Amino acid sequence: MKGKGFVVSEQWLPSLITATPEEGFQLAITMSRRGVKFTQPDVSVLKELRPAYANNADSLTAASQALATNFQTVAAANNYWR
Amino acid sequence: MKGKGFVVSEQWLPSLITATPEEGFQLAITMSRRGVKFTQPDVSVLKELRPAYANNADSLTAASQALATNFQTVAAANNYWR
Amino acid sequence: MKGKGFVVSEQWLPSLITATPEEGFQLAITMSRRGVKFTQPDVSVLKELRPAYANNADSLTAASQALATNFQTVAAANNYWR
Amino acid sequence: MKGKGFVVSEQWLPSLITATPEEGFQLAITMSRRGVKFTQPDVSVLKELRPAYANNADSLTAASQALATNFQTVAAANNYWR
Amino acid sequence: MKGKGFVVSEQWLPSLITATPEEGFQLAITMSRRGVKFTQPDVSVLKELRPAYANNADSLTAASQALATNFQTVAAANNYWR
Amino acid sequence: MKGKGFVVSEQWLPSLITATPEEGFQLAITMSRRGVKFTQPDVSVLKELRPAYANNADSLTAASQALATNFQTVAAANNYWR
Repeated sequence: MKGKGFVVSEQWLPSLITATPEEGFQLAITMSRRGVKFTQPDVSVLKELRPAYANNADSLTAASQALATNFQTVAAANNYWR
Repeated sequence: MKGKGFVVSEQWLPSLITATPEEGFQLAITMSRRGVKFTQPDVSVLKELRPAYANNADSLTAASQALATNFQTVAAANNYWR
Repeated sequence: MKGKGFVVSEQWLPSLITATPEEGFQLAITMSRRGVKFTQPDVSVLKELRPAYANNADSLTAASQALATNFQTVAAANNYWR
Repeated sequence: MKGKGFVVSEQWLPSLITATPEEGFQLAITMSRRGVKFTQPDVSVLKELRPAYANNADSLTAASQALATNFQTVAAANNYWR
Repeated sequence: MKGKGFVVSEQWLPSLITATPEEGFQLAITMSRRGVKFTQPDVSVLKELRPAYANNADSLTAASQALATNFQTVAAANNYWR
Repeated sequence: MKGKGFVVSEQWLPSLITATPEEGFQLAITMSRRGVKFTQPDVSVLKELRPAYANNADSLTAASQALATNFQTVAAANNYWR
């Protein structure tokens, strides 16, 4: 990473298809984290923010809302693993 | 669980398919709780946060929003139990 | 109900199918309330929270967002009563 | 209306089908208002809340989010008036 | 406009169909603004609120959430311009 | 850009179709940023807001919610890159 730019690794999201619902849930978590990282690419800032964040119930709930939307996308992509 | 890592049990989300809408609702609740747990895997912190959370109307509403999205996913997976 | 556990009545969500859009809207309201109840099963606490909640415009709006998502689910289940 | 109960008029949501997108938008507005009314059925309280609400930018935005979800439902019901 | 009523112009939303994704995005912006206007039809109040609003990062993000939902509707209506 | 108007470049959203999920994620980020820009077209104001924003965990989460919705749209447009 140089300056303010953020170079996306080619490998983090090769596909939305996963073998199981749980792997899909994990992928949705990864997507949610990436979403935050694109807005604040400085990992040291993210680490600093984490305690305040992870110890606040409303922050946790808000994060779980973005995750729910991302999981919805992954589940549809996998035809709900039916 | 060791340190900050969080090992996902293989068993918590074997399928999005449920026998009834109510079981689907229960599954959506489980998904919402897991979503929070992935951000804050320390159960003792979650327990500490719970009173402040569960006694605040806006927190309860926010939680119910994530749940609504998760239930939407589960309902679609089950073709709405039609 | 014993201690912190919350036993779901078998009867509250037998189906997502309703005869009319209005009944579907009523069902979505029930779902939203259940969503809150699962996080705070103590009805006396919910009753205590209600005045602060129902007299705050932003709380009302937030509740209406979860309801909108739940109605979306019910409407899709009923093929929009077309 | 008696005490805390709220009797739904049979007539407010006979169908999700509308002749035009604009009528669909109007219906979504009605749905959003009904959503708020179910949580706070006392119209005099709603009237009291209105000034604080309608003069706060964030409240207006939050309301517009619920509306966006309701319009999404109505638009899908009408097959997007294609 | 007379008093508190708000007369919808017949012309603002004739169709959800647009020639290009960008026109669809513009339409979603229009829909988001209309959504706010229905709650607060007094344009002079909206103008007053604008500085506080447009200079607050969280307000901007909230607005972008309603917009994202509206664009989702428009994109689906246009079969994603595929 | 002249005064308060905001002229949309013809080129920023030619299509929702992308070659890979990652490119789709990038597009969703662009859409989220454009969404904010339409509300506050003054780039110097946006730059001023950025530090407060990017260093606040809740702001980051809120941004990641709009992004999740936009990615959902892009993913559907691409038939989930199946």
